[in-house]
Amino acid sequence: METRTEIAEIGEFGLIEHLTKNFETYNASTIETVGDDAAVIDHFGKQTVVTTDLLIEGVHFDLMYTPLKHLGYKSVVVNLSDVFAMNAQPTQITVSIGISNRFSVEALSEFYEGVYAACEKYQVDLIGGDTSASQKGFIISVTALGEVAPGKYVKRNTAQKGDLICVSGEVGGAFLGLTLLERERKIYLENPKVQPDLEGEDYIVGRLLKPEARKDIIEFLEKNDIIPTAMMDVSDGVSSEVLHLCKQSVLGCRLHEEKLPINEKARQAAFKFGLDPTVCALNGGEDYELIFTLKQEDYDKITLNEEISVIGYMTDVEEGCKFISKGGNTFDITAQGWKAF
Amino acid sequence: METRTEIAEIGEFGLIEHLTKNFETYNASTIETVGDDAAVIDHFGKQTVVTTDLLIEGVHFDLMYTPLKHLGYKSVVVNLSDVFAMNAQPTQITVSIGISNRFSVEALSEFYEGVYAACEKYQVDLIGGDTSASQKGFIISVTALGEVAPGKYVKRNTAQKGDLICVSGEVGGAFLGLTLLERERKIYLENPKVQPDLEGEDYIVGRLLKPEARKDIIEFLEKNDIIPTAMMDVSDGVSSEVLHLCKQSVLGCRLHEEKLPINEKARQAAFKFGLDPTVCALNGGEDYELIFTLKQEDYDKITLNEEISVIGYMTDVEEGCKFISKGGNTFDITAQGWKAF
Repeated sequence: METRTEIAEIGEFGLIEHLTKNFETYNASTIETVGDDAAVIDHFGKQTVVTTDLLIEGVHFDLMYTPLKHLGYKSVVVNLSDVFAMNAQPTQITVSIGISNRFSVEALSEFYEGVYAACEKYQVDLIGGDTSASQKGFIISVTALGEVAPGKYVKRNTAQKGDLICVSGEVGGAFLGLTLLERERKIYLENPKVQPDLEGEDYIVGRLLKPEARKDIIEFLEKNDIIPTAMMDVSDGVSSEVLHLCKQSVLGCRLHEEKLPINEKARQAAFKFGLDPTVCALNGGEDYELIFTLKQEDYDKITLNEEISVIGYMTDVEEGCKFISKGGNTFDITAQGWKAF
Repeated sequence: METRTEIAEIGEFGLIEHLTKNFETYNASTIETVGDDAAVIDHFGKQTVVTTDLLIEGVHFDLMYTPLKHLGYKSVVVNLSDVFAMNAQPTQITVSIGISNRFSVEALSEFYEGVYAACEKYQVDLIGGDTSASQKGFIISVTALGEVAPGKYVKRNTAQKGDLICVSGEVGGAFLGLTLLERERKIYLENPKVQPDLEGEDYIVGRLLKPEARKDIIEFLEKNDIIPTAMMDVSDGVSSEVLHLCKQSVLGCRLHEEKLPINEKARQAAFKFGLDPTVCALNGGEDYELIFTLKQEDYDKITLNEEISVIGYMTDVEEGCKFISKGGNTFDITAQGWKAF
């Protein structure tokens, strides 16, 4: 009898690990390969980082409430976010799409308007791609290249004990935007006469549908001679990303609830939906903020930047990954991020 | 009333042209962008070429007769073929997959065995990717990077009048393999008790399911100091590719039926299916051979290589794109290559 292991049994990261564990590299130019936000290639001058994302209708987005222009913009931004998370500057992207014949040229033009808007904003060049038919649904595959001075890229496994854990901007908003839009979608499907009620929710809806990549943070760090000891972007949720940093750096951590940067509008939305804003901030994905660790001596350099919050610090691995609530209780941090399987 | 243009009206290439026509580049490092087999990036030393392909179940492959290992191998090879078609050496790839839960870990391992086999054979490094759920079908997106000495890459739009048109290996076999497998598939669906009859058809089936990229040809050209005046790979069929070379170089051409390299087994298979072997060679896709143009003075250098056939020559654009049959009749060349829409 043949063995059959369900993908759900080992999870997405387990699957990737399983599939790539016996792989060796052949080229001296391959500096960093599978396992980080992006791969690094030495080009005898600047180094190149490469990252890629696949977005599938019905899995990553719902066209019922996602305008195509926003989708094009976001498809680019989520890849640029990975480039910034390496402390690199994005330079080029490729965009491939698979589409069924329910899309018109005008609809695709709208999608590309979003792609182009992101390219202009972030000054990156669309340098290729592939266009294909799809039997069902809209499929988007983006690859981004970026450049970085040799050796200046920042990985996930290099945090040190005592380092400060920082996060840019605000977290949890995108998840609340998704919650709102999913709720309105269900109401609409049950009764198409009911118009969606998005009043006053621009903030959370914008966080989901039109995220930005934190180019400003990378520029601030460079300007102030700060190189994070480790960094990644927040796509699956703060909890999930912090656990990655800890696991890969073989460390533990302490996170403080009172330090989590949550926008007041996100907080209000959470209460309206009967959700805990802290849980949304920890476990909600798609914020595309940067999470990074800093040496303690760099603390003074970041205090004036309101876009950076210190949310905790790294500890010995034996101390585990802990979350301290406002009431002073200590919990184990668990990953509740987005799971594909 | 809103305008609605069907994609079918403008075709795949028209669509790409439409979507990219207003696009400008921002980085000095972007040397060649959309419109060739691969894009070129200057990395202050070697130049990097980047190419990407999207493969979708039910559109590009049928898992009923495509072993997953072969599919993994082919997914890589079709991208490397584009790198070679730029006269570059592939160095790295990223592989993203979208999969439904009908796939087990073992099934995906089989797919990656094929990916790894191709990586080993062509000495390229898998440097990243993305793994995602898919609601329906298997989706594969591969991006390949390659390197080339500055300025030594070969485009499609640089052929000159009088240049010889050459093709590597043999053409038409992959299309006949597809014809055979599609026929057996239909017979099986009508009557599952009938076993597939593939006896003696290893050649055409292998051409479809396990193509190779022509690394040997690129190495031969380099060794013999030959730089093609223009080059691309044969993925959509000789007719379609020749028309690309002519259109982009603003030239015409003459192709000679008697010069088309058709394997005897492909010829026999064509007769068995009641097809014209020449039509299969001209219009069948997926051969992944190289088609290139050479200065006439390079002719002596290639005569000893049995893997290169001269099939015609470039003319003034006014003379059109013509095909001369064995009987001496002249026909206009038309593209009957694979159309996605």
